[in-house]
Amino acid sequence: MKTAAVIMAGGKGERFWPQSRADRPKQFLSLTRDGETMIQKTVNRLSSLVDKDDIYIVTNARYLPLVREQLPDIPDENVIAEPASRNTAPCIGLAAEIIRKRCGEDTAMLVLPSDHLIRFNAMFVDTLRRAVKVAEHEENLVTIGITPTYPETGYGYINISTGETAYSGAYKVIRFYEKPDIERAKQYVSSGEYLWNSGMFVWKVSSILAKLKRYLPDMFGGLERIADTYGTDSYIQTLEEVFPNLEAVSIDIGIMERADDIYTIPGNFGWDDVGSWLSLERFNPTNEYGNMVKGDIISIDTHNSIIVGGNKLVATVGVEDLIIVDSDDAILICAKDSAQDVKHVIENLKTCNRFELV
Amino acid sequence: MKTAAVIMAGGKGERFWPQSRADRPKQFLSLTRDGETMIQKTVNRLSSLVDKDDIYIVTNARYLPLVREQLPDIPDENVIAEPASRNTAPCIGLAAEIIRKRCGEDTAMLVLPSDHLIRFNAMFVDTLRRAVKVAEHEENLVTIGITPTYPETGYGYINISTGETAYSGAYKVIRFYEKPDIERAKQYVSSGEYLWNSGMFVWKVSSILAKLKRYLPDMFGGLERIADTYGTDSYIQTLEEVFPNLEAVSIDIGIMERADDIYTIPGNFGWDDVGSWLSLERFNPTNEYGNMVKGDIISIDTHNSIIVGGNKLVATVGVEDLIIVDSDDAILICAKDSAQDVKHVIENLKTCNRFELV
Repeated sequence: MKTAAVIMAGGKGERFWPQSRADRPKQFLSLTRDGETMIQKTVNRLSSLVDKDDIYIVTNARYLPLVREQLPDIPDENVIAEPASRNTAPCIGLAAEIIRKRCGEDTAMLVLPSDHLIRFNAMFVDTLRRAVKVAEHEENLVTIGITPTYPETGYGYINISTGETAYSGAYKVIRFYEKPDIERAKQYVSSGEYLWNSGMFVWKVSSILAKLKRYLPDMFGGLERIADTYGTDSYIQTLEEVFPNLEAVSIDIGIMERADDIYTIPGNFGWDDVGSWLSLERFNPTNEYGNMVKGDIISIDTHNSIIVGGNKLVATVGVEDLIIVDSDDAILICAKDSAQDVKHVIENLKTCNRFELV
Repeated sequence: MKTAAVIMAGGKGERFWPQSRADRPKQFLSLTRDGETMIQKTVNRLSSLVDKDDIYIVTNARYLPLVREQLPDIPDENVIAEPASRNTAPCIGLAAEIIRKRCGEDTAMLVLPSDHLIRFNAMFVDTLRRAVKVAEHEENLVTIGITPTYPETGYGYINISTGETAYSGAYKVIRFYEKPDIERAKQYVSSGEYLWNSGMFVWKVSSILAKLKRYLPDMFGGLERIADTYGTDSYIQTLEEVFPNLEAVSIDIGIMERADDIYTIPGNFGWDDVGSWLSLERFNPTNEYGNMVKGDIISIDTHNSIIVGGNKLVATVGVEDLIIVDSDDAILICAKDSAQDVKHVIENLKTCNRFELV
């Protein structure tokens, strides 16, 4: 079955301030030491699975220059610019309509976030191949669940039925759960019946469009109106008129929590959602003092710190458990256990109308 | 008695890295929030005591552009460029010879470091006036001692005889002591017979030249050779030939520890030698969280830290007891109790031949 990939790259995100900004969110940052940006990695890890011509990037219109710059091999016509951010259901629906127009509705569609990291690529590709096999049947919607390794409270969970299904290695989804508190997270993990919701989906174009028609008929109608003009001069105008008025709902809530034929394939490929600067030490090597350093750094008696340099030398002396990030116009020095409070810096900047730094 | 001031501005100093550099030492930095540099403050605090035309700056030739830029009101001919650094005795001797040539040997000469801070200027000026009164007599050499407030091990001490002298408020000096260990420092402070050696001196030009002739006759001979050409075309050539070969000895060791007629006037004018970044919180106001901030700073849950911004925003979150200093090409993040280890950063830079950062 022909396979296309849709990479969702419209996210904003403030958690990588000061490197991430409203005009350069996380997916366009290089957070690993190899210099590749998150979205470049996302595209590159599909190389054995999907042709570059069959990779679609859905992003906000403001990020088009960044996409062109970072992904010159992706054809221009595969870059879908949302005129407004309307959450994942309209984003995925628009991509499905366009792929139907271009490749037909009998195409397998991989939906992938643009800002996650995967450690074991071969296993990732294998998982997606198996997901495609399940998605080929009926109107099955397949989600990739991540086997949890600890009771994370920052992720959504998928409750699965561990009984056998018609599809080897795939489990029937009972319910999706939003981020739990720590007690529930512990129960989920110890039960063995919950997986992390990675936000990666696989289905046929025909399947997801059928679900949209059934569960989100107004949205589907709007998407059809846009699709009818695809390839004509009035496409952009129709897109700009219709898309911003579509219901802003996530694919999880709009479809996945309502539909019956949802399956999960558990993934064990070293997934990381790279939620904050703290995650950098999970997937970048640390030195003998426990420091994750990137850039021009001199560290004296420095331990367990994350240090990301910019254009100048960063020298640390006698410190530990810090996150230090330099950027062109701002430096962050943050205690690791205060990482979530960086948002207060951004609030402060907004309050003071310093939007150039946000 | 006519009074001239000699400001010694040849010091190098690495303790204010990354703002201080080999080509911009501490005296040319602004370390207070008013924007004035240390040497500008030194000149300005003399305004009620000495004419600008009678203020001499002795500095290394490499710092001439900085002196001209920061002290445009000091006449060019008052800026004495040492072709090499030979410690304080040759520096002071050269200045004394030049002042003798220009004003006569019956001039009171104030010798002042360029990189100290003084909190109470009126008391400082009053102390110098009283020192001039003592220096007018005989060949008296007067040093300004600072009443110690704690057992500092980083300063030299002056042991005084607390008995009355011919000069009201002046004490006879028994001996100079180098930096003591903490036990001796405690004894010094509790005895009431020791003052900190501030490196500020007052004497007549004739007195110091007489002492140089007696205790450092070779140096005196060299200085006379230079002075003989002062105002002629061969001055620079003679200076460059003779000065670098003068004995590199401090005025303390070369003269003060040998001469008999040494007096001290105790100073209580809020003196601070500004020895490291740590001293910034002594003379700059701290905010309600104990932070000394300078520049564009956003501090969230930050306590007892010294934060000196450069050209970009510095944001701190959840940290305490740090020294953070930004400069054009390097950032320092240092625990307060590791301030003395910043020298290891500089050593590292030298080892790696990165002299542009030293």
